[in-house]
Amino acid sequence: MLTPYDAYLKENHDRFIDELLDFLRIPSISALPEHAEDIDRAAKWVADRLKAAGLEHVEIMPTSGYPVVYADWLRAPDRPTVLIYGHFDVQPADPFDLWDSPPFEPKLEHARIYARGASDDKGNLLSPIIAVEALLQTEQRLPLNVKFLLEGQEEVGSPQLPDFLARNRQKLACDLALSADGLQWSPDQPKIELGYRGICGLQIDVQGPAGDLHSGLYGGMVRNPIQTLSRLLATLHDNAGHILVPGFFDDVVDLTATDRQLMAKPPFDEAGICARLGVDALFGEPEYTPIERVWARPTIEIVGISGGFQGQGAKSIVPSRAQAKLSCRLVADQDPERIAALVKRHIQRQRIPGTQVQVIDIEGRALPYLMPHDHPGNLAVAQVLTELFGNAPFFTRCGGSIPACSLFLKTLGVYTVNFSFSYEDENLHAPNEFVRLKSLEKGQIGYAMLLRALDRQL
Amino acid sequence: MLTPYDAYLKENHDRFIDELLDFLRIPSISALPEHAEDIDRAAKWVADRLKAAGLEHVEIMPTSGYPVVYADWLRAPDRPTVLIYGHFDVQPADPFDLWDSPPFEPKLEHARIYARGASDDKGNLLSPIIAVEALLQTEQRLPLNVKFLLEGQEEVGSPQLPDFLARNRQKLACDLALSADGLQWSPDQPKIELGYRGICGLQIDVQGPAGDLHSGLYGGMVRNPIQTLSRLLATLHDNAGHILVPGFFDDVVDLTATDRQLMAKPPFDEAGICARLGVDALFGEPEYTPIERVWARPTIEIVGISGGFQGQGAKSIVPSRAQAKLSCRLVADQDPERIAALVKRHIQRQRIPGTQVQVIDIEGRALPYLMPHDHPGNLAVAQVLTELFGNAPFFTRCGGSIPACSLFLKTLGVYTVNFSFSYEDENLHAPNEFVRLKSLEKGQIGYAMLLRALDRQL
Repeated sequence: MLTPYDAYLKENHDRFIDELLDFLRIPSISALPEHAEDIDRAAKWVADRLKAAGLEHVEIMPTSGYPVVYADWLRAPDRPTVLIYGHFDVQPADPFDLWDSPPFEPKLEHARIYARGASDDKGNLLSPIIAVEALLQTEQRLPLNVKFLLEGQEEVGSPQLPDFLARNRQKLACDLALSADGLQWSPDQPKIELGYRGICGLQIDVQGPAGDLHSGLYGGMVRNPIQTLSRLLATLHDNAGHILVPGFFDDVVDLTATDRQLMAKPPFDEAGICARLGVDALFGEPEYTPIERVWARPTIEIVGISGGFQGQGAKSIVPSRAQAKLSCRLVADQDPERIAALVKRHIQRQRIPGTQVQVIDIEGRALPYLMPHDHPGNLAVAQVLTELFGNAPFFTRCGGSIPACSLFLKTLGVYTVNFSFSYEDENLHAPNEFVRLKSLEKGQIGYAMLLRALDRQL
Repeated sequence: MLTPYDAYLKENHDRFIDELLDFLRIPSISALPEHAEDIDRAAKWVADRLKAAGLEHVEIMPTSGYPVVYADWLRAPDRPTVLIYGHFDVQPADPFDLWDSPPFEPKLEHARIYARGASDDKGNLLSPIIAVEALLQTEQRLPLNVKFLLEGQEEVGSPQLPDFLARNRQKLACDLALSADGLQWSPDQPKIELGYRGICGLQIDVQGPAGDLHSGLYGGMVRNPIQTLSRLLATLHDNAGHILVPGFFDDVVDLTATDRQLMAKPPFDEAGICARLGVDALFGEPEYTPIERVWARPTIEIVGISGGFQGQGAKSIVPSRAQAKLSCRLVADQDPERIAALVKRHIQRQRIPGTQVQVIDIEGRALPYLMPHDHPGNLAVAQVLTELFGNAPFFTRCGGSIPACSLFLKTLGVYTVNFSFSYEDENLHAPNEFVRLKSLEKGQIGYAMLLRALDRQL
């Protein structure tokens, strides 16, 4: 026997799908300026849909870039408040010829909807709106206060978000953020991502002689800048892969026994990974497993190097210049500014006569993010995911960076729990992106369950 | 009162200049296939000039490339034999717009002749031919036996010479070679070059993962090939610039006290060199002076490096590949084959799991060359140069490679003494190349003096 909530979802199932198909027809590509009007249309569509769901104070708020759509329902004054995040912009759709059907003419087939943005993030974004509508229609109230923050520039790195958050701290105040943008481990297995790595980049420029020199006439007399650069780069790690920069690990949160137990749960096929990547062995700090290293240990990666003669055959020179670019992946509680300064100091204090070494910042820093696995928000999400999937979630992390999470923590002082239902096989950012109808249903049922569970836990 | 020899030179002075102007009008550019006929014309011109001088067995000998011109005078059976080397090809003349007069329309002005090849090497090549003519005309004999070996491919690296020498060992047999292709220290200061460095090159390829990887998803899990390469390169030298490859110095001829005294004589302006090269200090093995290092110590130079992302800004990858090219300058008695093998072994035995390292040979090896400063040939040349310049010569070496010298030593078993009169300021290989009339006279007088002196010394 269906609850009224479930019955409402069932009755309106076809309408919800039609709405999503409508939404997917808007080519709201944030990376392409010629689609600026489509972003505005998508914002308007979302605002209208929030209003129709019964949300209040719906507002299309301007930013320095594309607008943000805000809405709330705040009629539970003694209850906690959650902020639901998602984005209505999409990735570009080229190469078009690799799509089996046009990316902005959504196709419903085999219980999947194919279209650009179906999985990332329009399908996921709609689920909490539908859940709110269904709750308000069947119960006339929500279990707690809800705010929506839906942006239109996620696919270009959310450049407007830091400023927007800073200017709207009060309006966006909440007890927890929920992200309707993210992945589950697999259709059978949920996960909760507890952490992301931050990032900072540096460029090392080594200047030797003013121009390339004839190695016969000058070789042995002057310092070779590639030699200097190689020596500097070789001091970043020891032979086992440990980073040697003094102070680098000062603020790294050590892994607890529980952390390591949680990280050991997801399956990891080392031989399969090696074969797929084309390497004879994985490599890194031997005290940690490969998964621990990627999820919870910082890196200094040399992303590129150049200098001197790079053509075919030989050229007998002492080169004039050499350059390398570094990218550090950071973990909680490392500060990108401090780490960049430490690496810079480590390089620069090794000044070697005969060459000039300069270290400059590369733009694009991000803070690392880490949420306690036993945070009440995670406990609530874990309970709902277990019910939805029939399996307890893995507690994972991700070695990449998701700036929004650390931004919410820094600006609003709240953690972010991912609650969305995409999977890696859904061709996100690629041709033939699709979403499973089952995922939409999981989201619609799940959000109502989660709001109730959070009201109990927070 | 003039000797008959000097009188002959004086009487024919204008004719010799006209002949050189004629010779310079032939654009015998060996690097450009469209000038193939001009090389043949120059060979014919040289052969005719040798005949006119009274030389015998004049022959244009085919090779796998352009022909060699041979001639001899062997009518002193109990006397030693010298082989005189030079080349009748020239460098390309572009960029033409930087020439003040057309490169192949020689211009005589201010006691200089401007034309491509005037200094390198047509003017110098004519001097011993004229000297032979003047001796035969005035004395009806030469002090010793003379052979000429004049080639047409020096400016493209004499690719045909090794094979030609090997096939004509008997014909070219001699007691000493004289090179009519080379420089003096300055118009006031002669020099004798005792040695040249050899060369060998290697390329190091490091393969990491099969493709560039996302540094968020894989950074910390796999070995970075640029990191591997940097570590390998850093093991080639210590921090003071000493080469660390085992066995590298096994065959290096140590500098004697006399060698070091000779090398200390030429002026060396360290501050001026630093300013000109744009470096704050010279660098290399501290046990040796900069001149000693360039002239008499081997090097491993990293001539180029590349890998990963080399564009503007940042890209967060673990790169797939990295490459470096090495060029070793070698000194007597290092063997390029053995040194290449030693460096290769040193690199390859450091195999680091997670990346594959391959070291491959780069073509273009040359043997080092070193002649004793007190060799009788040098004593004779020193005596003549002192008389010609009014100054004793510096005994120098050169850090570059001159393959012909080591080739003559290896194939014919004889040393080569440079006896020619070009200077660094004469725009060799550059626009507005010129030769001083004074140099031509020094050569014409000098070669007769040298043949007499060699007859006494050898």
